Amino acid sequence: MYGAGDVRVQEVPDAAISEPTDALVRVTRACICGSDLWPYKSMPASEEGARMGHEFIGVVEEVGSSVATVRRGDVVVAPFVYSDGTCQFCEEGLQTSCTNGGFWGASGVDGGQGEAVRIPQADGTLVVLPVAEDDALMPSLLTLSDVFATGHHAALGARVQAGKTVAVVGDGADGLCGVMAAKRRGAEQIIILGRHADRTDLARDFGATDVVAERGKEAVTRVRELTGGVGAHSVLECVGMDDAFTTAVKIARSGGAVGRVGVPQYGALPAARDTFLRNITVSGGIAPARAYIEELLPDVLEGRLEPGRVFDRTVDLDGVPAGYKAMDDRDSIKVMVKP
Amino acid sequence: MYGAGDVRVQEVPDAAISEPTDALVRVTRACICGSDLWPYKSMPASEEGARMGHEFIGVVEEVGSSVATVRRGDVVVAPFVYSDGTCQFCEEGLQTSCTNGGFWGASGVDGGQGEAVRIPQADGTLVVLPVAEDDALMPSLLTLSDVFATGHHAALGARVQAGKTVAVVGDGADGLCGVMAAKRRGAEQIIILGRHADRTDLARDFGATDVVAERGKEAVTRVRELTGGVGAHSVLECVGMDDAFTTAVKIARSGGAVGRVGVPQYGALPAARDTFLRNITVSGGIAPARAYIEELLPDVLEGRLEPGRVFDRTVDLDGVPAGYKAMDDRDSIKVMVKP
Repeated sequence: MYGAGDVRVQEVPDAAISEPTDALVRVTRACICGSDLWPYKSMPASEEGARMGHEFIGVVEEVGSSVATVRRGDVVVAPFVYSDGTCQFCEEGLQTSCTNGGFWGASGVDGGQGEAVRIPQADGTLVVLPVAEDDALMPSLLTLSDVFATGHHAALGARVQAGKTVAVVGDGADGLCGVMAAKRRGAEQIIILGRHADRTDLARDFGATDVVAERGKEAVTRVRELTGGVGAHSVLECVGMDDAFTTAVKIARSGGAVGRVGVPQYGALPAARDTFLRNITVSGGIAPARAYIEELLPDVLEGRLEPGRVFDRTVDLDGVPAGYKAMDDRDSIKVMVKP
Repeated sequence: MYGAGDVRVQEVPDAAISEPTDALVRVTRACICGSDLWPYKSMPASEEGARMGHEFIGVVEEVGSSVATVRRGDVVVAPFVYSDGTCQFCEEGLQTSCTNGGFWGASGVDGGQGEAVRIPQADGTLVVLPVAEDDALMPSLLTLSDVFATGHHAALGARVQAGKTVAVVGDGADGLCGVMAAKRRGAEQIIILGRHADRTDLARDFGATDVVAERGKEAVTRVRELTGGVGAHSVLECVGMDDAFTTAVKIARSGGAVGRVGVPQYGALPAARDTFLRNITVSGGIAPARAYIEELLPDVLEGRLEPGRVFDRTVDLDGVPAGYKAMDDRDSIKVMVKP
């Protein structure tokens, strides 16, 4: 990506192992993330450009000399940051803060929207999938790299509990996966706030019990009506704009929690007094997907959950720029890339 | 209080029972709260004025016809809001959000810095103390009405756990009680950020292991040095200014939590991206003291904890204006009122 709206498909030097802890993975599935749309909207023009893509599945082609847990031929999923798996943060399940970790596409690191990726810290990063590279479950397995894990993280941050009430702000792929994650945790009432019928229909399939198409004050009124006047125990903020966060706080029940996973496009969290006076906890952040893959995998492998339904379009590498445009235009919920 | 710096001691109509759920309490001990200093600094001049005081102990003089749990002659402590004890929020321990509750000093409600108080919702509000009205434990018992309960609330919000690291921002009475609450929950390292030696000395008596007198960036550097470079698992924000909150976030360990109890003098929470990227939970708010009194009472009654040491001055009613000034000038940590 060379700037807002400027995504190019280019030849770059072949990915290659450079450290003994690396693996080389040939990408078989990747995707475009809602968070990729923020630079797509606003990135200043750049001569160097940025490698893009942080969600992918692939086949291990080669491993460095010290890699022990994956080997050539393994089908693997990469969570959306790499991590060593052994530092104090990794041991606590916060791989996004790994002291030897980092982001795909950062300087010197490949992006997932490409043919191949050098995987730093392969042992800590990759999870082997017990399937063939063209398994029919690939779309759902791919969501473990980020979007379903992110929905799960939102649900944990919002302290979703069985039998309780949940509201999800945003009907993008994160919000839809948040609905699924809330349902998986046993929420009784799941209200999705969204205006796109195709998305909210999918949300209902994923477990939403109510749809609120209104925005702002009207949305707050409607959610309060649906929750006995008091708001939802748990609110998943899956947008990242300050008005979405404000709405999330207003529809939260006193003593409840907001789990935010929308990358914040604001510098300060609004409603600081309301959260204080009503003891609303604000939690969440970037999801340590690596911590959740093993837990979420069985539900996907055994077909109980199909988070891959958030993909409504598939492109090849040449189709990636059009994929960005489709998501930015809201013509597509989420685009899968099949190199 | 008639405006900033303008506290007057005046005759008002005698407090009296007006509802069958009321009790009438003769105040034997009250105090001035750090939060009372915000209006003392900034309240616009007012002809009506505001009744002040929300922390008190007293003797029940009379009860309404439906009051069942307290009776004439009982020594009682009042938490810093009144609450019915039966609504859904009270049942969950969030009496500050009671649907029939409210604040002392609000319109039509007496303040605690006076001779007597009508107690709405007496059954839900008051806790009987098994002591005489002049018991030597009175200062510590009085802190159950707010300040010690608030320190405890900060510790819960910051998820203080045994064996972990805690930092406390602010060396006022709330911060000092936060230190004590963290120690009570088994924290291994407790760092207090404060610049007043008399207060930080008391903090050490309460359990602080380290004192950081620096502020801003230097304080952040110092706390990181003291915590292996990573910050504290739990941070108690006991000030309420945005720079204090920013410091609290910066000294929190990734994946940690900030429990804030300083009444926010800001409209938006700074560091919204830092908390997101490092998965720092922000919790806390006004403390539901009523929920904590029974739990904290034995440690006070049996002399294991002496939170009453935060009181370093006692005044009578006529001395209340001077008490405000002493606290505002930082000549006093916290002032007890003995009508």
